[in-house]
Amino acid sequence: MKDFVFHNPTKLIFGRWKIAEIGKDLKKDGMKKVLFVAGGGSIKRNGVYEQTVESLKNNGIEWVELWGITPNPRLSKVHEGIELAREQECDAVLAVGGGSVIDASKGIAAGIPYEGDVWDFYTGGPPSEVHPIYAILTISATGSEMNGNSVVTKDDTLEKKGMHGAPLTNPRTSIIDPSVQFSLPKEQTVYGAIDAITHVAEFYFNGSKELDFPDRLCESLIKTIIDSTDILLENPKDYDARAELAWSATMALNGMTAVGRGRGDWASHQIEHALSALYDIAHGAGLAIVLPAVLEYNMDIHRDKMEQFGERVFGVKEDAEQVLAKLRGLYRRWGAPVSLKDAGIPENDIRKIASNGSIGYPIGHPKKIVKEDVEKILALCV
Amino acid sequence: MKDFVFHNPTKLIFGRWKIAEIGKDLKKDGMKKVLFVAGGGSIKRNGVYEQTVESLKNNGIEWVELWGITPNPRLSKVHEGIELAREQECDAVLAVGGGSVIDASKGIAAGIPYEGDVWDFYTGGPPSEVHPIYAILTISATGSEMNGNSVVTKDDTLEKKGMHGAPLTNPRTSIIDPSVQFSLPKEQTVYGAIDAITHVAEFYFNGSKELDFPDRLCESLIKTIIDSTDILLENPKDYDARAELAWSATMALNGMTAVGRGRGDWASHQIEHALSALYDIAHGAGLAIVLPAVLEYNMDIHRDKMEQFGERVFGVKEDAEQVLAKLRGLYRRWGAPVSLKDAGIPENDIRKIASNGSIGYPIGHPKKIVKEDVEKILALCV
Repeated sequence: MKDFVFHNPTKLIFGRWKIAEIGKDLKKDGMKKVLFVAGGGSIKRNGVYEQTVESLKNNGIEWVELWGITPNPRLSKVHEGIELAREQECDAVLAVGGGSVIDASKGIAAGIPYEGDVWDFYTGGPPSEVHPIYAILTISATGSEMNGNSVVTKDDTLEKKGMHGAPLTNPRTSIIDPSVQFSLPKEQTVYGAIDAITHVAEFYFNGSKELDFPDRLCESLIKTIIDSTDILLENPKDYDARAELAWSATMALNGMTAVGRGRGDWASHQIEHALSALYDIAHGAGLAIVLPAVLEYNMDIHRDKMEQFGERVFGVKEDAEQVLAKLRGLYRRWGAPVSLKDAGIPENDIRKIASNGSIGYPIGHPKKIVKEDVEKILALCV
Repeated sequence: MKDFVFHNPTKLIFGRWKIAEIGKDLKKDGMKKVLFVAGGGSIKRNGVYEQTVESLKNNGIEWVELWGITPNPRLSKVHEGIELAREQECDAVLAVGGGSVIDASKGIAAGIPYEGDVWDFYTGGPPSEVHPIYAILTISATGSEMNGNSVVTKDDTLEKKGMHGAPLTNPRTSIIDPSVQFSLPKEQTVYGAIDAITHVAEFYFNGSKELDFPDRLCESLIKTIIDSTDILLENPKDYDARAELAWSATMALNGMTAVGRGRGDWASHQIEHALSALYDIAHGAGLAIVLPAVLEYNMDIHRDKMEQFGERVFGVKEDAEQVLAKLRGLYRRWGAPVSLKDAGIPENDIRKIASNGSIGYPIGHPKKIVKEDVEKILALCV
């Protein structure tokens, strides 16, 4: 087992009607006014906005609203939030939405006390001072509600980069009410699940020899994500399945799956960042295409682990190639794209994708890969 | 899945030679002088004392030593630590040892700023102000290194009571170097493993209906604890097995196994507290006797879960009774007592044990049990 540091101070409040807790926690922490960050307006339709505002009012917390955070959130929007929060003298940033809203909120919180451009933290080291962040999650996918990561896209160059500022950029309190996800469109549930599976896979398939608990943890998470998603495709209002999926997606990237394994691969995420930066496709859709191709390209180092995965997750004793085919088959069955064409991406763009600035070569672990490798991987997505 | 709050701010540093990090973390947190709390002296033989002191010196941290914390630590010793820390104006308490040392240190840290008797926190609610706690773990068992629990025994009445002050009584930083456990006597490794298994079992067998990830997490932990212990009985210096056991024991009681399950049973722990308070036997030894008897007594509500446990942990499809027999067989194979007689406890003492003040009736969840039930459970330990 590899050495590690685990430190995740986020307080997670989980369950039905728990959004009411947010005002209490803000008050207890001495906050008076927050920047309320949100996306396109779905929270006004599913009751989340109303519950949040009621909790803020009940606890005497003032707020200023910043709407319009998009999927693959833009740096310009983060800049707008920083200006607004400074002007309005907000004590904290409250993200109310999915991973994009929380990621943008982390960028805003890191930028408020910083004199330079917050983009520095996405291209260089982490911030040393960050405004307090709180989150109410509305879609389980990125795990941003319980980690310090933030991914933002620069408007002009379309570079998509990550800031890793844990524990300072972790939300202090995050609230997950799985029932607010009852109304998610089917494909959002699926893409969230695929994002979470890929987070686990980036660590699981990192060249580690066989591990006991760390392997079983990853396998248990992926198995639960698959089982719950299957249930939700039949009945999107199954509370237990929503809850199992939500908690598994949070666990997939809160540091637990990294324990004892060393560095993750992250090649799939790097390559996908280029896809979603260029074509603005859903992150989970891009990952459905890329992860199987990366695993196929690196099969020489993952063969044993892939067969163990087949046995423990899919319950089959098969060759690594057949197990991988099962993963692609699962994604296809869920209606996710498994090729560039499925996602409407021109196959002639392979060189352009591999050259996108979102990818900071060399990428990958343990195998370091360069542009030529990525072109070959993308050729496996045709 | 039941609602929950997960909040565990302890920073865990894990790996070989990591004790050197303690001074850095203390310095970073602004600590100048610590109360160094230790047990009977084993840390002078396994290199832990030397490594700790070197790290303190290298980082300019002063310390005062309090030796002699015993297994089942006494309230009088906690009082002594409080006086010493106040007199010497220590900024923090540094526990260097196993669960008893860490538990006593939490009592000391809670008592320093409190005007009344710290025993109040063991019989009433948790403290609202606590001196900072740091820990270097030397035996994996109680999980105290990553939770806010402390169990202390009152000298005159032999009552053994718990304080539950998380997150305030959580260590800020805990260091686990599994290699310092190479020299543990065989029975300490075994009793540590049984303590950890029981922590998981108190939640796993709590009457929850079938859960997906929460069940698999518990099963994965117990399976890893069993596998690693078996390896260590052959080769006590197997680093990976020490590491797997150490991390699993920490995970067994850091809040993760409680997620989605609601309250734990804790009947086994309550009954065992009476045993070790009266006869000063190892906590793990007492649990080896009590847990199987509690499960046997409550088999009507645990039958399905016991059979699932047999299938997923022992890999057998058998009746609940046969699975339970396998657990007792495992403990017997490890050389642990499975009856009162095995532990040298007079079988005539059943009434005395059931009447010990450590047990705060009614106990247990979901089945509430009283003194008569405990007498019947103890009769199953004959």
